[in-house]
Amino acid sequence: MTDLRQQALDYHSSPTPGKISVQLTTAAETSEDLSLAYSPGVAEPCREIAENPDDVYKYTAKGNTVAVISNGTAVLGLGNLGPMASKPVMEGKALLFKRFANIDSFDIEVKHKTVEEFVNTVANIADSFGGINLEDIKAPECFAIEKALIERCRIPVFHDDQHGTAIVTAAGLMNALDIQGKDINQSNIVCLGAGAAAIACMELLIKCGAQREKIYMLDSKGIVHTRRDDLNDYKKLFANNTDKRTLDDAIKGADVFVGVSGPNLLKQEQVKLMADNPVIFACSNPDPEIKPELALAARDDLIMATGRSDYPNQVNNVLCFPFIFRGALDVRARTINDEMKVAAVHAIRTLAKEPVPEEVLIASGEKELSFGKDYIIPKPMDSRLCGAVAKAVAKAAVDSGVAALDLPANYME
Amino acid sequence: MTDLRQQALDYHSSPTPGKISVQLTTAAETSEDLSLAYSPGVAEPCREIAENPDDVYKYTAKGNTVAVISNGTAVLGLGNLGPMASKPVMEGKALLFKRFANIDSFDIEVKHKTVEEFVNTVANIADSFGGINLEDIKAPECFAIEKALIERCRIPVFHDDQHGTAIVTAAGLMNALDIQGKDINQSNIVCLGAGAAAIACMELLIKCGAQREKIYMLDSKGIVHTRRDDLNDYKKLFANNTDKRTLDDAIKGADVFVGVSGPNLLKQEQVKLMADNPVIFACSNPDPEIKPELALAARDDLIMATGRSDYPNQVNNVLCFPFIFRGALDVRARTINDEMKVAAVHAIRTLAKEPVPEEVLIASGEKELSFGKDYIIPKPMDSRLCGAVAKAVAKAAVDSGVAALDLPANYME
Repeated sequence: MTDLRQQALDYHSSPTPGKISVQLTTAAETSEDLSLAYSPGVAEPCREIAENPDDVYKYTAKGNTVAVISNGTAVLGLGNLGPMASKPVMEGKALLFKRFANIDSFDIEVKHKTVEEFVNTVANIADSFGGINLEDIKAPECFAIEKALIERCRIPVFHDDQHGTAIVTAAGLMNALDIQGKDINQSNIVCLGAGAAAIACMELLIKCGAQREKIYMLDSKGIVHTRRDDLNDYKKLFANNTDKRTLDDAIKGADVFVGVSGPNLLKQEQVKLMADNPVIFACSNPDPEIKPELALAARDDLIMATGRSDYPNQVNNVLCFPFIFRGALDVRARTINDEMKVAAVHAIRTLAKEPVPEEVLIASGEKELSFGKDYIIPKPMDSRLCGAVAKAVAKAAVDSGVAALDLPANYME
Repeated sequence: MTDLRQQALDYHSSPTPGKISVQLTTAAETSEDLSLAYSPGVAEPCREIAENPDDVYKYTAKGNTVAVISNGTAVLGLGNLGPMASKPVMEGKALLFKRFANIDSFDIEVKHKTVEEFVNTVANIADSFGGINLEDIKAPECFAIEKALIERCRIPVFHDDQHGTAIVTAAGLMNALDIQGKDINQSNIVCLGAGAAAIACMELLIKCGAQREKIYMLDSKGIVHTRRDDLNDYKKLFANNTDKRTLDDAIKGADVFVGVSGPNLLKQEQVKLMADNPVIFACSNPDPEIKPELALAARDDLIMATGRSDYPNQVNNVLCFPFIFRGALDVRARTINDEMKVAAVHAIRTLAKEPVPEEVLIASGEKELSFGKDYIIPKPMDSRLCGAVAKAVAKAAVDSGVAALDLPANYME
């Protein structure tokens, strides 16, 4: 543990502090180069854009740039560390955007007092970018923030902690249900956790066929039900008209457990109470709601996923966010709508069912991967993800009428 | 002209739109790399920074990052084109920061209604960066904006159109006066123009020894004098208790003309009215207040500078802004104060008086350069600038008590 700690600190401090820098994409050696890059030549693209605002996509880096924006109120599982201490995570996200989808991304940390102030700040700078990835903003403020920014910005705004998590979870979960021979619209679902990710996951599962009344959501006070008077507007949507009160009550006969809460909150005895052939997504990170070895010791008919890379079936947002933005940017979508999110779910699901090429096995450090209990979602290092997910998302954007451009030629089948 | 136009547009649209992109400074190939760059490893620098806020300089790119921020209200000489149409200029500035001083810089364009809203927006995101370069913001709002941001931010905030221009102008002007055998505190100075650059130039010249009462500033209504009631607070500082009213009145016997106004506003007849051995800085760009060939035809005892690269003595902000930030960042100055600006003036002056090495001649496309009427300031492609200016600025920051760090070893003499 100390070793990882020191390795991580060294990684962040050398060769230079941080993980990203700027590079030039045009020649800038000679006086002649600079007279095009800056005065007097630069006046020409300025004039063109003043005349035709869409030309900003033609003459500037806007169209391939995504800002990663946070206020540091929910940094990883560490809580409200504030904007500055969130910066390594935001730079890390920028690194992943570049690494996986060749999107130029940099981070902006916002200090603010009110939700309105955060929204105004981000809306005022939004036109500088092609898209905005919100990150590590605590619930319930994140819902109002995302909603307001989507309304005010002309570019895609996406809170990855909500929707990235939801998309990857939904893809894995539906594949797991396929293997278990269950139908999502018949499944009893327990969701332990009622924060941003939990609510987004359940909303997306409903769009994928789950029945709202078959979902039991639990927060720190137990089941979210209709007779509670302490629920925020977002939890209220999941308030169940039920006499069940505890996780013990909810887990009996459940087909699916989704944990987006904290470590070790699901017990072996509770796992035993679930229906036959259950699915457990214990996504608390780094320590899941139940360790896979404990869950599998309790019963062997289950399919298990976690957020960890050292167990099978890692639920990792990197399967989605770089590519959903890649697709959105490539057709200049003005937003990321439900159609695009569902398209991403299906693209990820489909890819898991396809034969895995040798180079993906090598990159993933695996000898064999074939669709089944231990391989329900693609590996993060699967280089096919970008093409598959971005293409599906771009197509959904075009089909649902939110794209300014047609599908690029290389996206056609 | 059409040729330059098309070249500039092509330059901005290929190989990819715009001029800057992001690159990674750490390894990001394997799963192991990514487990350090992002979860779980990234939690470690987050914790360190939460504990010790200054560690943000150790573990993130903040300390070498400068945001170029504009609202597009005074784009080049083109006027208020709005934030989007200013983007090529801002990206160009980012390119120059990287090219000349290896500073990672990206641009943010802000839309806003009031000065207060602009200030709040920038102050809220400022901690993300190591410094802020304000650009192309019109006067008089730029003064209040810069002042408020300097007060609210813990990092250097520098409006280059004001201070970069002022520093390079002051350096060139004082060298020209040396050659003409004049003393700045005895010189009569005419300043045609009363915008951001004009006011900053005159303020800095005063700090370098010029006498306020020997300065005649002119706006579109003529001389700024004490009996006018239409002056903003910034012009008022230059209101002269005089009966002179016009440029003709002011130019008689003037030692120095500084133009930061518009093309062809200074006539040959007026040049003839100046004192012996005068100095003319006609900085309107691309068309100066008077063309050098016309001024020199009027009299041959003058020294002439313009903003153009195709005449001798180009006043170009790139001689200063990359390096003043380089010096400020290298000692983590919390602001850019007058001592640092004056140090930059003297470093630029001194460099112009030194012998020019062969490689600088080659880079500048010159056969010979030696201090004199046609070479009063260094050339933009002079690679010695970064070391000389940054070192002087860093030392001034340390000496004036605004630096958090000592001079780096490579800055010691």
